Amino acid sequence: MDLYSGYINKLIEELSNLPGIGSKTAGRLAFHILDMPQDEVKELANALVDAKNNVKYCKRCQTLTDAELCPICASDSRDQKTIMVVETTKDMAAYESVGEYNGVYHVLHGAINPMAGIGQNDIKLKELFERLKDDIDEVIIATNSSVEGEATAMYISKVVKPLGIKVSRIASGVPVGGDLECIDNVTLLRALQGRVTI
Amino acid sequence: MDLYSGYINKLIEELSNLPGIGSKTAGRLAFHILDMPQDEVKELANALVDAKNNVKYCKRCQTLTDAELCPICASDSRDQKTIMVVETTKDMAAYESVGEYNGVYHVLHGAINPMAGIGQNDIKLKELFERLKDDIDEVIIATNSSVEGEATAMYISKVVKPLGIKVSRIASGVPVGGDLECIDNVTLLRALQGRVTI
Repeated sequence: MDLYSGYINKLIEELSNLPGIGSKTAGRLAFHILDMPQDEVKELANALVDAKNNVKYCKRCQTLTDAELCPICASDSRDQKTIMVVETTKDMAAYESVGEYNGVYHVLHGAINPMAGIGQNDIKLKELFERLKDDIDEVIIATNSSVEGEATAMYISKVVKPLGIKVSRIASGVPVGGDLECIDNVTLLRALQGRVTI
Repeated sequence: MDLYSGYINKLIEELSNLPGIGSKTAGRLAFHILDMPQDEVKELANALVDAKNNVKYCKRCQTLTDAELCPICASDSRDQKTIMVVETTKDMAAYESVGEYNGVYHVLHGAINPMAGIGQNDIKLKELFERLKDDIDEVIIATNSSVEGEATAMYISKVVKPLGIKVSRIASGVPVGGDLECIDNVTLLRALQGRVTI
């Protein structure tokens, strides 16, 4: 017997399509939503549709924004000659929350991953190389330290270096507060190779 | 600097109001939603609003449904003279998934909790007592084994017993597969008190 109403089943099914939400969590969320006041539910639904309809890529750095240029690209106080290349808008947000970086960003929206059929034309690399025609001092590659991230970093450096622009890669090593015995061998090796004189 | 667009912030804020979803998860969900095709986002938004607009309480057992009577109350094959009292529609679903119970339910939508200001008039008790005017054989109280659930069970039994209707409470004890050493003292005591001859 179909226990819940069709509308509840539909809602649970839709919610469980979201990442990290299984059928149990979806059920909990669905019943919470049914308990919410009607206008709050409408507001949540509108937030979904509005975000999807109004958010687009920044013309310059390709991050998600609702204006032609994102606040960082549009800012006079940022060093527009230093570009940090990241995989996602969330990575950019992570560096912004540190608050120490004053350059601008370029969001690739992914990394080269031949196994998943993602080549250099499937991420925002063309847009990055287009930006390098302007007067750029340095490209800092901050893709993830995964196989895909490293491959993407390698590819970018091969294209950018011949242009005479400085290319750097964020350091790889032991995380601050990390316990040496819990850290994998590759990271330990990288930390050794990248040691700095004190 | 406000890094994300207003629409993204609004979406993250709305999502993080849901239970068990913190700001990090809300961010992950928001960016997943921005990556989804537009019609899927619309479908999710519609599922929210439709569920909220169309789901109501079953006239008899008060569970959430979209018809006058829920499928269980409307069924001829269920024993309408045995009522299992549960706190939520989810609890009812849990017993339905067992598949052995053939009676009907009554969903209280909560439990008596004076600390939170929830009295006997704030849950669907009046509707339960109204149903007892019909020919009812047994009321099985399956509220949670929490302080509130026990208080609610006590209250119901005090009202129902004088009517000459059999009142029972689901057994409390060691969960199947449970490890005795991990189980709290109250449960161990209940299991001992409720021991059955084999």
